[in-house]
Amino acid sequence: MFASAPSTLRHVAFALCLGLLAIGTSLAGAQAQSDPLPSWNEGAAKKSITDFVAKVTAQGGAEFVPPTERIAVFDNDGTLWCEQPIYFQAAFALDRVKAMALDHPEWKNRQPFKAFLSGDRKALAAQGEKALLKLVAATHSGMTTDEFAKSVADWLATAKQPRFDRPYNELIYQPMVELLAYLRANGFKTFIVSGGGVEFMRVWAEKAYGIPPEQVVGSSGVVTFRIGVSGPELTKLAKIEFVDDGPGKPVGINRFIGRRPIFAFGNSDGDLQMLQWATAGEGARFAGIVHHTDAEREYAYDRQSKIGKLDKALGEAAAKGWSVVNMKMDWKQVFPSQ
Amino acid sequence: MFASAPSTLRHVAFALCLGLLAIGTSLAGAQAQSDPLPSWNEGAAKKSITDFVAKVTAQGGAEFVPPTERIAVFDNDGTLWCEQPIYFQAAFALDRVKAMALDHPEWKNRQPFKAFLSGDRKALAAQGEKALLKLVAATHSGMTTDEFAKSVADWLATAKQPRFDRPYNELIYQPMVELLAYLRANGFKTFIVSGGGVEFMRVWAEKAYGIPPEQVVGSSGVVTFRIGVSGPELTKLAKIEFVDDGPGKPVGINRFIGRRPIFAFGNSDGDLQMLQWATAGEGARFAGIVHHTDAEREYAYDRQSKIGKLDKALGEAAAKGWSVVNMKMDWKQVFPSQ
Repeated sequence: MFASAPSTLRHVAFALCLGLLAIGTSLAGAQAQSDPLPSWNEGAAKKSITDFVAKVTAQGGAEFVPPTERIAVFDNDGTLWCEQPIYFQAAFALDRVKAMALDHPEWKNRQPFKAFLSGDRKALAAQGEKALLKLVAATHSGMTTDEFAKSVADWLATAKQPRFDRPYNELIYQPMVELLAYLRANGFKTFIVSGGGVEFMRVWAEKAYGIPPEQVVGSSGVVTFRIGVSGPELTKLAKIEFVDDGPGKPVGINRFIGRRPIFAFGNSDGDLQMLQWATAGEGARFAGIVHHTDAEREYAYDRQSKIGKLDKALGEAAAKGWSVVNMKMDWKQVFPSQ
Repeated sequence: MFASAPSTLRHVAFALCLGLLAIGTSLAGAQAQSDPLPSWNEGAAKKSITDFVAKVTAQGGAEFVPPTERIAVFDNDGTLWCEQPIYFQAAFALDRVKAMALDHPEWKNRQPFKAFLSGDRKALAAQGEKALLKLVAATHSGMTTDEFAKSVADWLATAKQPRFDRPYNELIYQPMVELLAYLRANGFKTFIVSGGGVEFMRVWAEKAYGIPPEQVVGSSGVVTFRIGVSGPELTKLAKIEFVDDGPGKPVGINRFIGRRPIFAFGNSDGDLQMLQWATAGEGARFAGIVHHTDAEREYAYDRQSKIGKLDKALGEAAAKGWSVVNMKMDWKQVFPSQ
């Protein structure tokens, strides 16, 4: 055995080299043929994206943008994941009210909890938007930030979206996940800029989209610092601090990112000002809109929808030549495979 | 000429290879000997830093921290740059009031502008802190974010700190600049978390410290979006929105970063809660304080100072074993060479 070792080693080394060469060749072949956006059908929407990325990354080109300036922002609800039949964060709040009711016997006789817990939709609807805000406040405050994050993680581990019978964080859009990765591979820094709660999204956004907590911009409630029994803690209060929606989106971008994005994607009128702000800068700019046209694989809604209403922004997209993604036509696949 | 070209090319190629080999060898030598913190004297402070970085980056070690969790936060005034004889942002505000006075003839008869512009320090002092806030508001609002950024850049290009007769953004601490680069080279993401204005810092922080705008957390005023004459614009209002100081620092970290830092550096009691928050997390934690002990090369101040008061945090550092940097003893050099 030992006598033949050097010769064996040579054989092994030789075999390894052959193997590496073979792997190298097949990798090169795969790379040349691979499509970074495999869930997108060939068409105007896909071409508008790849053309934009090609021109801003072409060193020496007229529209080259240095990597530090390659800021890309994405709305979340309806742009990166599904938002029907109700915003997923609202589903979380309602599920949490039920779960927390055991510890809150007083809710049986207090509105809007009473109406919601007894399934009295008419009484709940009569109390309007304020009722929902009260339910959200009860489930999003009066606890530490760590406790809240845990309640979100626990919910995601068990709750399922009713129509698709899948965990909510599986109902992300596969083509958009590919787009995020494609942009990052081309030197972009990707951010979420959403009307959703920033602390709600940060729990799962990194795993779902590859976007770390510090690149998630969202709405927030007031948080306060104190030295508690077991040390320093941050407590969530029932007071809205910032609404990152509509004209709040460019404000949030300015506050959190401090640079004007060159690439922005949304799906509703709540994203209009973000798209306006991103495209009003100098040099090459990209604005995209996900148009929900696929009742079969997802949902179809736009100008008349209560959730994710897309009206003014659709008009402005046509006028300004923004890229409109027709979900039914442009996407081979909507959600990740199970 | 042309006939000998191939042979010449071979000579050139050979010389290039020799040259590359020589460069490679000298680089390897330099790397083996190089000190990532050359402006730090050998001592407890420097050792506490390098020991911490070694243990959290040791793959397979008991205190290993994955790169995504290597969040490092730094106060700015008095920690990364000088803050005497007045906060540099206050110097900016005062210089701007003088520059703007030409366009504001009404200031001659309106307080606190009248007192300040006529050099009546007694009258100005009598108006207290509110006077300074009014001067700051006048120079930090009523303009677009782009106009404000330009006013900061213009000021930095001409103004000089009186004692050192150097531009303010040259009065950054060379040892801390090295520390920031050293942490980044070890997979840390570096953030500023400062009581200073976020839009004031973002103008120059990337060039000075290598910290991009999206990693600067600071105090802010309300900003509003509108479609102006020349398109979408963000206007700064004279209303404070968030004070990123004291208990506001962990709140700002939670809002902007969304992860608890494992490494934090400050210099005053305004940083105490940030240091408490960072060190209260699980696993390896580092807290550092810059103690201004060098009246000759910089300034010497702590418990009695109006600016950068360091009292409670110094006591807590001693009790908890935080690293205290003695500027006079620990730093070979304070500011970058001219």
